[in-house]
Amino acid sequence: MKTQTPKGFRDFLPKDALKRKFLLDKIIEVFERFGFDPLETPTLEFEETLAGKYGEEEKLIYKFETRGGDKVALKYDQTVPLARVVAQYGPNGQQVLPIPFKRYQIQAAYRGENPQAGRYREFLQCDADIVGVSNSLVDAELLSLMYEIYLNLGLDVVIKINDRSLLKGIEPKFLSTIDKLNKINDTGVLKELEEKGLSKDKALELLNKVKNLKPTANLKETQILYFKMGYPKDSLKFDPTLIRGLDYYTGIIMEVVLKSDPLSLSLCGGGRYDEMIGKFSGVDLPANGFSIGLERTMNAMAKQGLLDTPPTNTKVLVTLFSPELIQKSLEVTSNLRKEDITTEIWLDPGAKLEKQLKYADTKGIPYVIIIGPEEIKNKKVMVKDLKKKTQESISQPNLLDAIS
Amino acid sequence: MKTQTPKGFRDFLPKDALKRKFLLDKIIEVFERFGFDPLETPTLEFEETLAGKYGEEEKLIYKFETRGGDKVALKYDQTVPLARVVAQYGPNGQQVLPIPFKRYQIQAAYRGENPQAGRYREFLQCDADIVGVSNSLVDAELLSLMYEIYLNLGLDVVIKINDRSLLKGIEPKFLSTIDKLNKINDTGVLKELEEKGLSKDKALELLNKVKNLKPTANLKETQILYFKMGYPKDSLKFDPTLIRGLDYYTGIIMEVVLKSDPLSLSLCGGGRYDEMIGKFSGVDLPANGFSIGLERTMNAMAKQGLLDTPPTNTKVLVTLFSPELIQKSLEVTSNLRKEDITTEIWLDPGAKLEKQLKYADTKGIPYVIIIGPEEIKNKKVMVKDLKKKTQESISQPNLLDAIS
Repeated sequence: MKTQTPKGFRDFLPKDALKRKFLLDKIIEVFERFGFDPLETPTLEFEETLAGKYGEEEKLIYKFETRGGDKVALKYDQTVPLARVVAQYGPNGQQVLPIPFKRYQIQAAYRGENPQAGRYREFLQCDADIVGVSNSLVDAELLSLMYEIYLNLGLDVVIKINDRSLLKGIEPKFLSTIDKLNKINDTGVLKELEEKGLSKDKALELLNKVKNLKPTANLKETQILYFKMGYPKDSLKFDPTLIRGLDYYTGIIMEVVLKSDPLSLSLCGGGRYDEMIGKFSGVDLPANGFSIGLERTMNAMAKQGLLDTPPTNTKVLVTLFSPELIQKSLEVTSNLRKEDITTEIWLDPGAKLEKQLKYADTKGIPYVIIIGPEEIKNKKVMVKDLKKKTQESISQPNLLDAIS
Repeated sequence: MKTQTPKGFRDFLPKDALKRKFLLDKIIEVFERFGFDPLETPTLEFEETLAGKYGEEEKLIYKFETRGGDKVALKYDQTVPLARVVAQYGPNGQQVLPIPFKRYQIQAAYRGENPQAGRYREFLQCDADIVGVSNSLVDAELLSLMYEIYLNLGLDVVIKINDRSLLKGIEPKFLSTIDKLNKINDTGVLKELEEKGLSKDKALELLNKVKNLKPTANLKETQILYFKMGYPKDSLKFDPTLIRGLDYYTGIIMEVVLKSDPLSLSLCGGGRYDEMIGKFSGVDLPANGFSIGLERTMNAMAKQGLLDTPPTNTKVLVTLFSPELIQKSLEVTSNLRKEDITTEIWLDPGAKLEKQLKYADTKGIPYVIIIGPEEIKNKKVMVKDLKKKTQESISQPNLLDAIS
């Protein structure tokens, strides 16, 4: 029997699942504070819905035909399903979505990437978008949301912004070279531009031109609004060499980087795409949004010791001293649970105490309670602190206080 | 362009996504209180992993071949992936899972069912299992967990139990008839047993035999332990005619029904399956667990008015009186958010107040704040309560108290 997952698909055992939950809870907290509501769309969409949306990457979509003959595909991102939802339920569809539509969406996406490159084929996306209004206030609101999320996660970040309209008229193949500036520097960019057909002079001229672009009126206004909200001056930076890959951006583009490592890969990115929803509904509805890179954000947090979550939910293991004394262990367990202290009772009455302690230790449960005949006689329980390697005999009425 | 989902696959717009989140948060709260940790497994498994596990239902599995030639399948339930995980990481595998392994798992499953029958092809499952120990204490712990979950959801339930070992030796085809007792009564069952080849006398004899089965020693002990935990006598009931479909059960089987409607379809069910994990690892590891029927549970709650969650996370909409007064609205918004009051700011400076109020009303936002020139002069804000249809002018320092 095969006991493995397909390549690029992962199990999350409790320790890692708990880290993800910790991170997502902190992100959701901020989404909600900003009045974003959750949206969920199915794992499968009609193939037709995804077709023609992702350019060359389309070949990475998982497609298949169902027994019933439906041509379906696994979700490739959350943006195209959002566009479908807005077209289906919005002002040009069933008219049940209030506009502006502010939603967050935390669901998996599927891409047939090469898993050798450290990429996963199933990965969680965490998106927030505002649909229906195109102006600098919306743009500033999303910048503010990005900043507050990273503040809540404990990471000190800078948001880089640019405006796609500034880059109009520059050939995409040259933009994709300038996009590598942080990685290969001026020399590398100039060399590649020449390889792509520009003369030495023209290459230098283009790079300088891009570097010296000035913010658009909309970007300036966005910056003013963002600072009016009270955020620090060094948390937002206009960067005319910020390009971002996807073709569909039409206005502001934005990326979050660590303040301590501004040239590293972005933790989060997005931008305005005012024309995509029209592809579905026939009527353009402007939109702006971003996607949080969960893996990179988790790595950054781990490096800074911000992700040292307990390896288990369980705070207390109540052991079984002997089969005859189960009743007392059941009582103590119930009482702890009633006070919302996450408690396990050991489940195998035949096991030695040593085995029970080893289980708690392996699993990372911080406290173990032992109730033997001596303790029952004195109306006490023995509480072991496995981290401090101490133990204390506590009278039963005081147990809750001692544990909390 | 196609603006719909494949049949049996659903969108959850905010109002419904919030109901699901409300329910799941309440369930997770209890899982954690009992020391269960989360597990996540991938959407895709190797086809081989799922093959031969589901009997006739196997034809409902979604299967396909990836571009890379992997034969894969969409997850059909959470139990087979759990069995794979335990075989892969447990005592006969990588040895990184502490045993007993207590996990909960809330993920989608995929079945190519006939969606006409009110069934969905993608649906969320919510499972809890204990792997590694087989005894009445484990069984009682799971009954207790079930009961506490429904208590936390506000539903008054009865747990019916039986033991599969009591039904050994009865032909499966006859069992599947007796399984319908609640639906078609004695007369219907007897008729169907005769149709399946039993004489009238033998049919009656069989039905009476099953009805008069007595609890096994293990069931009796489980009941004693459950009641020792302090649960009410009428919350657990031995029912020898409880059958449950899946072949793999080996011991206790259990189902949760509403106390007010004990003959209706179960809200939650499960049982002991001590032989399945051995199919993967070659070494048997006992297990017991259950799956919560989220749709049915939500329906039962809705009927009793227990699912009247707000249609949006947003509690307050701060309106924009005019483009010149944005600054003040931004300030009030920031202050409310700092106090964790979920707040939206209206995002279109050109819109009339009427439109802004209509948005709040449609979306179900309970409070609207208006800050016009008059209010700014008097350092006040106008707070409208859209449900009560009242409004009040409140001085800005008192706003937080008034809203909370």
